[in-house]
Amino acid sequence: MNDCLFCKIAAGAIPSTKVYEDDKCLAFMDIGPVVQGHALVIPKEHFANLSEATDEVAAHLICVARKIAVAQTKALGAAGFNVITNQGAVAGQTVGHLHFHVIPQFEGNAHKWNWEARPYRDLSEAAALAEKIKSAL
Amino acid sequence: MNDCLFCKIAAGAIPSTKVYEDDKCLAFMDIGPVVQGHALVIPKEHFANLSEATDEVAAHLICVARKIAVAQTKALGAAGFNVITNQGAVAGQTVGHLHFHVIPQFEGNAHKWNWEARPYRDLSEAAALAEKIKSAL
Repeated sequence: MNDCLFCKIAAGAIPSTKVYEDDKCLAFMDIGPVVQGHALVIPKEHFANLSEATDEVAAHLICVARKIAVAQTKALGAAGFNVITNQGAVAGQTVGHLHFHVIPQFEGNAHKWNWEARPYRDLSEAAALAEKIKSAL
Repeated sequence: MNDCLFCKIAAGAIPSTKVYEDDKCLAFMDIGPVVQGHALVIPKEHFANLSEATDEVAAHLICVARKIAVAQTKALGAAGFNVITNQGAVAGQTVGHLHFHVIPQFEGNAHKWNWEARPYRDLSEAAALAEKIKSAL
Protein backbone atom coordinates (compact mmCIF):
# COMPACT_ATOMS: atom_id res chain seq x y z
CA MET A 1 0.00 0.00 0.00
CA ASN A 2 1.48 3.32 -1.09
CA ASP A 3 0.72 5.25 2.04
CA CYS A 4 1.49 2.56 4.60
CA LEU A 5 4.36 3.35 6.97
CA PHE A 6 5.28 -0.29 7.50
CA CYS A 7 5.12 -1.11 3.78
CA LYS A 8 7.61 1.72 3.27
CA ILE A 9 9.83 0.31 6.02
CA ALA A 10 9.55 -3.19 4.51
CA ALA A 11 10.56 -1.78 1.12
CA GLY A 12 13.48 0.15 2.63
CA ALA A 13 11.99 3.49 1.56
CA ILE A 14 11.98 4.51 5.21
CA PRO A 15 15.00 3.37 7.23
CA SER A 16 14.68 1.10 10.24
CA THR A 17 16.99 -0.62 12.66
CA LYS A 18 16.61 -4.21 11.52
CA VAL A 19 16.82 -7.18 13.82
CA TYR A 20 15.80 -9.96 11.46
CA GLU A 21 14.70 -10.33 7.85
CA ASP A 22 13.65 -13.12 5.54
CA ASP A 23 11.65 -13.27 2.31
CA LYS A 24 8.31 -12.97 4.11
CA CYS A 25 8.90 -10.74 7.11
CA LEU A 26 10.99 -8.07 8.74
CA ALA A 27 11.71 -7.35 12.40
CA PHE A 28 13.00 -3.97 13.51
CA MET A 29 13.31 -1.86 16.61
CA ASP A 30 10.27 0.15 17.74
CA ILE A 31 11.44 3.77 17.97
CA GLY A 32 8.88 4.44 20.71
CA PRO A 33 9.53 1.38 22.88
CA VAL A 34 7.48 0.46 25.90
CA VAL A 35 10.75 -1.01 27.22
CA GLN A 36 14.14 -0.55 25.57
CA GLY A 37 14.78 -3.46 23.22
CA HIS A 38 11.12 -3.54 22.06
CA ALA A 39 10.97 -4.95 18.52
CA LEU A 40 8.23 -5.26 15.90
CA VAL A 41 7.68 -8.14 13.49
CA ILE A 42 5.78 -7.38 10.29
CA PRO A 43 4.91 -9.29 7.13
CA LYS A 44 6.40 -7.77 3.98
CA GLU A 45 3.07 -8.20 2.25
CA HIS A 46 0.44 -5.74 3.39
CA PHE A 47 -2.24 -7.05 5.71
CA ALA A 48 -4.14 -4.51 7.77
CA ASN A 49 -4.34 -6.78 10.78
CA LEU A 50 -4.43 -10.35 12.04
CA SER A 51 -7.96 -10.97 10.76
CA GLU A 52 -6.96 -10.07 7.23
CA ALA A 53 -3.77 -12.11 7.25
CA THR A 54 -3.56 -15.79 6.42
CA ASP A 55 -2.86 -18.60 8.86
CA GLU A 56 0.47 -19.09 7.11
CA VAL A 57 1.50 -15.48 7.70
CA ALA A 58 0.31 -15.51 11.32
CA ALA A 59 2.22 -18.73 11.97
CA HIS A 60 5.41 -17.40 10.44
CA LEU A 61 5.23 -14.14 12.39
CA ILE A 62 4.71 -15.83 15.75
CA CYS A 63 7.69 -18.12 15.12
CA VAL A 64 9.88 -15.14 14.28
CA ALA A 65 8.52 -13.23 17.30
CA ARG A 66 9.40 -16.22 19.46
CA LYS A 67 12.92 -16.35 18.06
CA ILE A 68 13.43 -12.65 18.79
CA ALA A 69 11.96 -12.92 22.28
CA VAL A 70 14.33 -15.77 23.10
CA ALA A 71 17.22 -13.69 21.75
CA GLN A 72 16.16 -10.75 23.94
CA THR A 73 16.37 -12.96 27.00
CA LYS A 74 19.78 -14.31 26.00
CA ALA A 75 21.37 -11.13 24.68
CA LEU A 76 19.78 -8.41 26.78
CA GLY A 77 19.23 -10.36 29.99
CA ALA A 78 15.46 -9.94 29.88
CA ALA A 79 13.64 -11.95 32.54
CA GLY A 80 10.55 -12.28 30.38
CA PHE A 81 8.62 -10.62 27.61
CA ASN A 82 5.24 -9.78 26.14
CA VAL A 83 4.29 -10.77 22.61
CA ILE A 84 1.27 -8.73 21.55
CA THR A 85 -0.74 -7.92 18.48
CA ASN A 86 -3.46 -5.30 18.68
CA GLN A 87 -6.26 -5.09 16.16
CA GLY A 88 -8.30 -1.92 15.77
CA ALA A 89 -7.82 1.55 17.22
CA VAL A 90 -10.04 0.49 20.11
CA ALA A 91 -7.43 -2.12 21.04
CA GLY A 92 -4.47 0.20 20.63
CA GLN A 93 -3.44 -0.48 17.02
CA THR A 94 -1.81 2.69 15.70
CA VAL A 95 -0.37 1.51 12.36
CA GLY A 96 -2.72 -0.25 9.95
CA HIS A 97 -0.27 -2.98 8.93
CA LEU A 98 -0.19 -6.20 10.94
CA HIS A 99 2.58 -6.23 13.52
CA PHE A 100 3.57 -8.21 16.56
CA HIS A 101 5.24 -6.37 19.42
CA VAL A 102 8.03 -8.24 21.19
CA ILE A 103 8.64 -6.39 24.43
CA PRO A 104 11.43 -7.54 26.74
CA GLN A 105 10.83 -7.18 30.46
CA PHE A 106 13.61 -6.75 33.00
CA GLU A 107 13.66 -7.38 36.73
CA GLY A 108 13.57 -4.05 38.52
CA ASN A 109 12.75 -2.13 35.37
CA ALA A 110 9.65 -3.78 33.94
CA HIS A 111 6.62 -2.13 32.42
CA LYS A 112 3.75 -3.22 34.65
CA TRP A 113 0.63 -3.49 32.53
CA ASN A 114 -2.70 -2.28 33.91
CA TRP A 115 -4.06 -5.80 33.77
CA GLU A 116 -7.39 -5.73 35.58
CA ALA A 117 -9.41 -8.87 36.08
CA ARG A 118 -13.12 -8.18 36.20
CA PRO A 119 -14.67 -11.51 37.21
CA TYR A 120 -18.13 -12.38 35.94
CA ARG A 121 -20.85 -11.96 38.53
CA ASP A 122 -22.14 -15.33 37.39
CA LEU A 123 -20.30 -17.84 35.21
CA SER A 124 -23.47 -18.28 33.18
CA GLU A 125 -22.51 -14.94 31.62
CA ALA A 126 -19.24 -16.48 30.42
CA ALA A 127 -21.10 -19.55 29.16
CA ALA A 128 -23.50 -17.40 27.14
CA LEU A 129 -20.61 -15.51 25.53
CA ALA A 130 -18.79 -18.79 24.83
CA GLU A 131 -21.86 -20.11 23.02
CA LYS A 132 -21.96 -17.02 20.83
CA ILE A 133 -18.25 -17.28 20.00
CA LYS A 134 -18.59 -20.99 19.22
CA SER A 135 -21.48 -20.27 16.88
CA ALA A 136 -19.20 -18.01 14.81
CA LEU A 137 -16.19 -20.35 14.58
CA MET B 1 2.42 -31.69 35.06
CA ASN B 2 0.52 -32.87 38.08
CA ASP B 3 0.21 -29.51 39.80
CA CYS B 4 -0.46 -27.36 36.76
CA LEU B 5 -3.83 -25.62 36.70
CA PHE B 6 -4.04 -25.51 32.91
CA CYS B 7 -2.98 -29.16 32.54
CA LYS B 8 -5.87 -30.01 34.85
CA ILE B 9 -8.23 -27.91 32.75
CA ALA B 10 -6.90 -29.53 29.54
CA ALA B 11 -7.50 -32.95 31.07
CA GLY B 12 -11.00 -32.00 32.21
CA ALA B 13 -10.09 -32.53 35.88
CA ILE B 14 -11.03 -28.91 36.48
CA PRO B 15 -14.07 -27.65 34.57
CA SER B 16 -13.87 -24.80 32.11
CA THR B 17 -16.19 -23.05 29.70
CA LYS B 18 -14.82 -24.30 26.40
CA VAL B 19 -14.84 -22.28 23.23
CA TYR B 20 -12.78 -24.54 20.97
CA GLU B 21 -10.94 -27.83 21.22
CA ASP B 22 -8.85 -30.02 18.96
CA ASP B 23 -6.29 -32.74 19.57
CA LYS B 24 -3.52 -30.26 20.33
CA CYS B 25 -5.15 -27.33 22.06
CA LEU B 26 -8.05 -26.02 24.06
CA ALA B 27 -9.63 -22.57 24.23
CA PHE B 28 -11.82 -21.56 27.15
CA MET B 29 -13.19 -18.47 28.82
CA ASP B 30 -10.94 -16.60 31.26
CA ILE B 31 -12.88 -16.39 34.52
CA GLY B 32 -11.13 -13.14 35.40
CA PRO B 33 -11.52 -11.35 32.07
CA VAL B 34 -9.97 -8.01 31.25
CA VAL B 35 -13.03 -7.53 29.03
CA GLN B 36 -16.04 -9.84 28.97
CA GLY B 37 -15.55 -12.46 26.27
CA HIS B 38 -11.81 -12.79 27.03
CA ALA B 39 -10.65 -16.31 26.07
CA LEU B 40 -7.45 -18.27 26.61
CA VAL B 41 -5.83 -20.69 24.16
CA ILE B 42 -3.53 -23.34 25.61
CA PRO B 43 -1.66 -26.35 24.26
CA LYS B 44 -2.79 -29.66 25.77
CA GLU B 45 0.84 -30.64 26.21
CA HIS B 46 2.59 -28.82 29.00
CA PHE B 47 4.97 -26.04 28.01
CA ALA B 48 5.84 -23.47 30.64
CA ASN B 49 5.91 -20.64 28.16
CA LEU B 50 6.51 -19.60 24.56
CA SER B 51 10.28 -20.13 24.79
CA GLU B 52 9.83 -23.73 25.86
CA ALA B 53 7.23 -24.53 23.22
CA THR B 54 7.99 -25.60 19.68
CA ASP B 55 7.44 -23.54 16.56
CA GLU B 56 4.71 -26.00 15.59
CA VAL B 57 2.83 -25.43 18.85
CA ALA B 58 3.25 -21.65 18.67
CA ALA B 59 2.00 -21.63 15.08
CA HIS B 60 -1.04 -23.73 15.91
CA LEU B 61 -1.97 -21.59 18.91
CA ILE B 62 -1.77 -18.30 17.01
CA CYS B 63 -3.98 -19.70 14.25
CA VAL B 64 -6.57 -20.82 16.81
CA ALA B 65 -6.29 -17.48 18.62
CA ARG B 66 -6.89 -15.73 15.30
CA LYS B 67 -9.95 -17.87 14.62
CA ILE B 68 -11.39 -17.05 18.05
CA ALA B 69 -10.63 -13.34 17.70
CA VAL B 70 -12.45 -13.24 14.38
CA ALA B 71 -15.39 -15.05 15.97
CA GLN B 72 -15.43 -12.51 18.82
CA THR B 73 -15.78 -9.70 16.30
CA LYS B 74 -18.55 -11.51 14.41
CA ALA B 75 -20.48 -12.94 17.32
CA LEU B 76 -19.97 -10.37 20.07
CA GLY B 77 -19.66 -7.26 17.93
CA ALA B 78 -16.12 -6.51 19.11
CA ALA B 79 -14.46 -3.65 17.22
CA GLY B 80 -11.01 -5.10 17.76
CA PHE B 81 -8.98 -7.29 20.06
CA ASN B 82 -5.64 -7.94 21.71
CA VAL B 83 -3.82 -11.23 21.31
CA ILE B 84 -1.16 -11.49 24.00
CA THR B 85 1.19 -14.00 25.52
CA ASN B 86 3.18 -13.03 28.59
CA GLN B 87 6.31 -14.88 29.62
CA GLY B 88 7.66 -14.61 33.14
CA ALA B 89 6.18 -13.08 36.29
CA VAL B 90 7.95 -9.85 35.40
CA ALA B 91 5.84 -9.68 32.23
CA GLY B 92 2.58 -10.58 33.95
CA GLN B 93 2.47 -14.36 33.45
CA THR B 94 0.49 -15.82 36.35
CA VAL B 95 0.01 -19.45 35.28
CA GLY B 96 3.11 -21.40 34.28
CA HIS B 97 1.58 -23.09 31.25
CA LEU B 98 1.79 -21.35 27.88
CA HIS B 99 -1.36 -19.44 27.03
CA PHE B 100 -2.49 -16.82 24.57
CA HIS B 101 -5.04 -14.27 25.73
CA VAL B 102 -7.66 -13.28 23.17
CA ILE B 103 -9.30 -10.13 24.50
CA PRO B 104 -12.17 -8.55 22.57
CA GLN B 105 -12.42 -4.78 22.66
CA PHE B 106 -15.65 -2.88 22.24
CA GLU B 107 -16.31 0.70 21.22
CA GLY B 108 -17.31 2.68 24.30
CA ASN B 109 -16.31 -0.10 26.65
CA ALA B 110 -12.70 -0.91 25.83
CA HIS B 111 -9.87 -1.63 28.19
CA LYS B 112 -7.34 1.10 27.49
CA TRP B 113 -3.87 -0.31 28.06
CA ASN B 114 -1.24 1.83 29.75
CA TRP B 115 0.87 1.78 26.61
CA GLU B 116 3.68 4.26 27.17
CA ALA B 117 6.19 5.00 24.44
CA ARG B 118 9.55 5.98 25.84
CA PRO B 119 11.57 7.09 22.81
CA TYR B 120 15.31 6.53 22.79
CA ARG B 121 17.32 9.68 23.47
CA ASP B 122 19.48 8.63 20.56
CA LEU B 123 18.70 5.95 17.98
CA SER B 124 22.24 4.62 18.40
CA GLU B 125 20.90 3.10 21.63
CA ALA B 126 18.35 1.13 19.60
CA ALA B 127 21.03 0.12 17.10
CA ALA B 128 23.27 -1.19 19.88
CA LEU B 129 20.41 -3.26 21.33
CA ALA B 130 19.53 -4.55 17.86
CA GLU B 131 23.11 -5.73 17.35
CA LYS B 132 22.97 -7.64 20.64
CA ILE B 133 19.65 -9.26 19.71
CA LYS B 134 20.92 -10.20 16.25
CA SER B 135 23.99 -11.81 17.77
CA ALA B 136 21.74 -14.17 19.74
CA LEU B 137 19.42 -15.19 16.88
